[in-house]
Parts: sequence; C-alpha cells; structure tokens
Amino acid sequence: MQLLEERIQTAGQVLGENILKVDSFLTHQVDTNLMKEIGQTFAQTFKEAGITKVVTIEASGIAPALYTAEALEVPMIFAKKSKNITMTEGILTAQVYSFTKQVTSQVSIAEKFLSSDDKILIVDDFLANGQAAKGLIEIIEQAGAKVEAVGIVIEKSFQDGRQVLEEAGHQVLSLARIDRFQDGQVVFRQADL
Amino acid sequence: MQLLEERIQTAGQVLGENILKVDSFLTHQVDTNLMKEIGQTFAQTFKEAGITKVVTIEASGIAPALYTAEALEVPMIFAKKSKNITMTEGILTAQVYSFTKQVTSQVSIAEKFLSSDDKILIVDDFLANGQAAKGLIEIIEQAGAKVEAVGIVIEKSFQDGRQVLEEAGHQVLSLARIDRFQDGQVVFRQADL
Repeated sequence: MQLLEERIQTAGQVLGENILKVDSFLTHQVDTNLMKEIGQTFAQTFKEAGITKVVTIEASGIAPALYTAEALEVPMIFAKKSKNITMTEGILTAQVYSFTKQVTSQVSIAEKFLSSDDKILIVDDFLANGQAAKGLIEIIEQAGAKVEAVGIVIEKSFQDGRQVLEEAGHQVLSLARIDRFQDGQVVFRQADL
Repeated sequence: MQLLEERIQTAGQVLGENILKVDSFLTHQVDTNLMKEIGQTFAQTFKEAGITKVVTIEASGIAPALYTAEALEVPMIFAKKSKNITMTEGILTAQVYSFTKQVTSQVSIAEKFLSSDDKILIVDDFLANGQAAKGLIEIIEQAGAKVEAVGIVIEKSFQDGRQVLEEAGHQVLSLARIDRFQDGQVVFRQADL
C-alpha cells in the first residue's frame, strides 16, 4: 500500500536494530484518513469472503480493525490483555508474548462473541514474531470459528512471524513489508496489498 | 442520544450495584455504526469550536474518539496506560485510578503531540468517578494546551465524576446519563446531547 509506505518513510522513526516507531499516525496519535484507507483496502480484498467479524488486540490494532469492520459491515472485537471485573462469564484465553513490552500477557475474548458459524478476519498493526496473531488464532479456534486470514498493517519481514503463521496454514496479507533497516531508513519488500 | 439509550436498554447488562456491562457494542465487541453516530454527534456539537485534537485513553475510548476525530478532521491521540520500550522521549504522565480494574495506573502521552496551540476535546467511553478524565486533563494542561470539553458516551450520574470535572471548571457533555439501576434495569436522566 503505497500511501502507507510513504508515510512510514516520512514519519516513521527507526530506533536501534529492529524497532520502528510509528506513533505519529498509528500507535499513539492516529491519522483517521490513513486508517480509513487501510480499512477499505483490507475490506476490498475480503468483500466476497463472507467475513462475519474482524478481530484484533487492544490497543493499536483497534483503529485499523474498526475501519475494516465498518467497510465490511460486520462487528469488530478487540481481545483484552487482562481480565477486569466486568468480564466474569466464560472467556477464551491464550498467552501472548509482547516483543515491544517484553512481557507475557493473557489475552482473552468473551466466548459469547465467537461461534462455529464465524469466519474471522484478524487485523493487527504489527507482525513481528507472530505471537499476538497466534494467540488470537488459538482463541478463535477454541470457539470453533474459522480464521479466514490475517491482515497486517506493518510486517517486519526480517522476523519470523509470517513464517510461523503460514506454516500453521494461515494466509497473511500485509500492507507494508519491511525487509530491513539500513542507515536509519526503512527498506521495503513488495507488499501483499 | 436516543439511539444509544435504546441500545443500553436492550443490550446492556446491569451487574451488581453499580456496574453496567456494554461489551456487546462498546467495550469489547464494537458496533461501528453506533460508534460512527456517536462520533458525528460529538463532532456536530464542536464543529465551530476550533478543536485541533481528540484525546482519549486506551482501549474502549478509542472507537468513539476515532469517529469523533474523523468527523472533526483532526488527529486522535490515545493516552497509554503503561510505558513501553518504543516510548522513550519526553512523556507527560498522570496517575489514574481505574474503578473497573481497581488499580492505579500511570497514563501518558508523548509531549511532542501536544502544544500550547492545541484545543482538545476529550472523549471517553465511561464517566464514573472522573479519575480517567482528570488524568487526561492534567496531562493536557502540563503541555499548556486547552481542554475545550469532555465528551462522554455513558455517564454514571450517581457517581461524582461530573461534579469533580465541573468544579474544576470543565464542560461535560454526555450522550447517556444513568440516574440509577432499578430491578436490573437502567433509569436514565436527561442526556446532554
């Protein structure tokens, strides 16, 4: 997605060896126009796929997932990173290691929102080692629902997330694929969309 | 906002003495159409106010804040509940007690996204004791920016959040105001919008 790659080039900051900071438009401050374009791009690809729900993890996945769900005219569900006291009923859980936060957290979705009739599109902001997406897939499959595909805004192609997901039989579609960082700049691979 | 009150009546669940669960359309599964209506309602009210940014807290505030920002054609910023390793620069922080999670957490916004020229509309999903909004106001004022108003999706009018904010000189506009829970049902007060 050219618009996204251009924004990453102009507004992203490469920090250290493998961190890309995109907090001016995606992970902290959010550009609603860009998010809407992202959502419409995913939705265009899956408009004939019979998607019933879009699933993401709080918090940075919410904006792109919301616009994808809006364009597909289905609900969006964001998995929670910790239990709270209003979440008492049957919940489905998985353990997820966060690369950026360097902690393992429990991710959960209320059982009642997923059924064996559901065909899910996962949307997340980053794909690095694939742990977040793997956790979501685990939860969705516990409910007997089908994961149609995993839509990623920014894939770090030098980490093994895509491989992990593809080897488990899942389709991954990324809007921007980062091959490497070179002299503080981002070098892209050919994106999927 | 009639559409919202109707949804709370039909889909909300009253749990115990003062908890309202709205996880089927706002805090876990999200109804994009309703969120869009909410965003447009806030935006309509503030379209002449010169708002430069919409600010919320992760995670349930993001959806209504995003659509408000889209309709006002300004960026949305979601405050973070914990520091992560990509957030290393100057950050502005406040302590916030969460009623639902029963913990105090640090809320932060990167300094670079707020300036003394900013006129901020805060949007959040719930107003109970006002601690979250108070924390956001504290951060925004640290940056020298102006808080124009606080837009709330669901206000628990039997708690003192509105009073706390109004006594501090802030305008509060709530789309649904809950007077009390009675026999497991929600009784509303006249909403602001």
